[in-house]
Amino acid sequence: MALISPSRRLRRTPFSDGVEAAGCKAYTVYNHMLLPTVFRSVEEDYRHLKSAVQVWDVACERQVELRGPDAGRLMQMLTPRDLRGMLPGQCFYLPMVDETGGMLNDPVGVKLADDRYWISIADSDLLFWVKGIAYGYRLDVLIDEPDVSPLAVQGPLADDLMARIFGDQVRDIRFFRFRMFDFMGRSIAVARSGYSKQGGFEIYVDGADIGMPLWNALMEAGADLDVRAGCPNLIERIESGLLSYGNDMTRDNTPHECGLGRFCNTQTAVGCVGRDALLRVIKDGPTRQIRPIAIEGDAVPGCDRPWPIMDGDYQVGQVTSAAWSPDYETNVAIGMVRMTHWEPFTDVDVLLPNGEVRAAVVHGVFWN
Amino acid sequence: MALISPSRRLRRTPFSDGVEAAGCKAYTVYNHMLLPTVFRSVEEDYRHLKSAVQVWDVACERQVELRGPDAGRLMQMLTPRDLRGMLPGQCFYLPMVDETGGMLNDPVGVKLADDRYWISIADSDLLFWVKGIAYGYRLDVLIDEPDVSPLAVQGPLADDLMARIFGDQVRDIRFFRFRMFDFMGRSIAVARSGYSKQGGFEIYVDGADIGMPLWNALMEAGADLDVRAGCPNLIERIESGLLSYGNDMTRDNTPHECGLGRFCNTQTAVGCVGRDALLRVIKDGPTRQIRPIAIEGDAVPGCDRPWPIMDGDYQVGQVTSAAWSPDYETNVAIGMVRMTHWEPFTDVDVLLPNGEVRAAVVHGVFWN
Repeated sequence: MALISPSRRLRRTPFSDGVEAAGCKAYTVYNHMLLPTVFRSVEEDYRHLKSAVQVWDVACERQVELRGPDAGRLMQMLTPRDLRGMLPGQCFYLPMVDETGGMLNDPVGVKLADDRYWISIADSDLLFWVKGIAYGYRLDVLIDEPDVSPLAVQGPLADDLMARIFGDQVRDIRFFRFRMFDFMGRSIAVARSGYSKQGGFEIYVDGADIGMPLWNALMEAGADLDVRAGCPNLIERIESGLLSYGNDMTRDNTPHECGLGRFCNTQTAVGCVGRDALLRVIKDGPTRQIRPIAIEGDAVPGCDRPWPIMDGDYQVGQVTSAAWSPDYETNVAIGMVRMTHWEPFTDVDVLLPNGEVRAAVVHGVFWN
Repeated sequence: MALISPSRRLRRTPFSDGVEAAGCKAYTVYNHMLLPTVFRSVEEDYRHLKSAVQVWDVACERQVELRGPDAGRLMQMLTPRDLRGMLPGQCFYLPMVDETGGMLNDPVGVKLADDRYWISIADSDLLFWVKGIAYGYRLDVLIDEPDVSPLAVQGPLADDLMARIFGDQVRDIRFFRFRMFDFMGRSIAVARSGYSKQGGFEIYVDGADIGMPLWNALMEAGADLDVRAGCPNLIERIESGLLSYGNDMTRDNTPHECGLGRFCNTQTAVGCVGRDALLRVIKDGPTRQIRPIAIEGDAVPGCDRPWPIMDGDYQVGQVTSAAWSPDYETNVAIGMVRMTHWEPFTDVDVLLPNGEVRAAVVHGVFWN
């Protein structure tokens, strides 16, 4: 791995001091912000995530705030998911597409009130798209990036740790719901959500000044739970089939190719951008789709570019995320596969930078 | 410095193989793409840039292509600079702002034809803004990111090296103009421009497949000129007063605060977004502005966060880029300074993470 040069442009977060003190070894850059990727080792972090509880600096999940009379209308323009049933207190996973149905982001929408939403974004400047649409349509809505930085608490002991800080009421939060809790006299949203399948919460830390106090409070309260600083874990998220925008999908892909068709209600999401293109996609069905792939042999290197999936001399897809899984004793991977080869158990080859290896489309829905 | 984790999301470029073979030691991430920052050392790279010639992988300067009958109208909407006099073959430095006059990007616009432009962008997803505006206004224009990757040739010997590949006609290209040249049977735009003040060119490599052939051709042709792989150099670009979007300016800043007022013709740039806000800014004048700052003492650390500029207990600005300059034997820096303190020779203090040091607003227009 190469080094990363410091600059203000790669923004620090309200939790960076804690991350550094915990011995963060590597980062990626996400929404122009530092996102930790490794503390002890990817494998050791993985074991710990699956058995204890971790605190994650995911401040890079920036918020796009929509506030004003047209906030609801604009939200529905931004996604093919039907938002009519969305209530304050709910979080919705929302594919967002351009006019051709190409994925622009796959954020979580957070409904704070009928006239106020946060869009908790994956790695693209969705703010620019939202502002452009609002400007073009002269909508009565204010759009900005507020000083709100998510801090995730993930792992099987997450409920226990969170209850010590916020009280036992946090245990009652349902999946993809949020409630408001007090911390240092400030009311902050706590959602049951997160980028792992080990369970846990995302705290929408409202104000950078309470970032380190909350980080420290969690670390102190969880000492006997073996709480550690952690981060989204490459192995665990592939096992769990959690897609990564920019890795597993880009503007080239429709939600249906990404297996996100169940989040599209294009017939009823009136006014959504990309409607015409997606109605056509639904008619024909996608010709390629995301699949779990198991790659044989030794641990693969870091997937820093798409790896072609081959059937003989023909490319039938590409792998875009991959890692050795200690629990499943194989390389787990996420790939986009042509319909001719997307059935479970289909044998293919994957062209790594250092040679071709055997692989197969996995049966079922990922590993975890 | 920490390590950077590999992933497809941090895109490689058509020149990455050459960059790696040349021993690149560190990167930054720019437009979701790897941008080299150090080869031998920042200081050694700097000396070499000022005395010889370097080839830079600046593929991360992605293009937003506008093509169609409304391309010209859309371009003028995107910038307060008056584009009426812009001819095909010209490059224009273009502040681009939102409806409040906040900087969204400071790209170079490249006019290929009356109905076809490239916007060669700094580090933000300007594509999303351009697409949003075009969609909202129902403009008849296609917007996309083409497979075009700039390769810069910079340094005092750049003309000599380029002439060996493209012929002596490259010497006649005027500053911020481009001409089309053949390479491997393909017609590619070569502009006299670049992110240094040492002179040179940017080649808009049209098609990833000819990336490494061109890289290798330049390296072979320039062996006796001591050509090396290089990259935008932190010291040189600060000395030269070349601003960096995301570092020295953000959406918080107007072009006038950034000293880019001379690129704004807000009165005549009819239809430009942000017009009303910028007309107000012009009336009042900015209350803070970019200034060259010299920081006393030993070499400063990497500026990974804004450093407050202080007058006693009062903050009067912030430094956002800084480096030790061997040629000027001081720390050269770029900062945003309040009007009360922006006059040349004003003494201030800069609050580094490791303590306060003396500094002064520099007289004149940066160093180079």
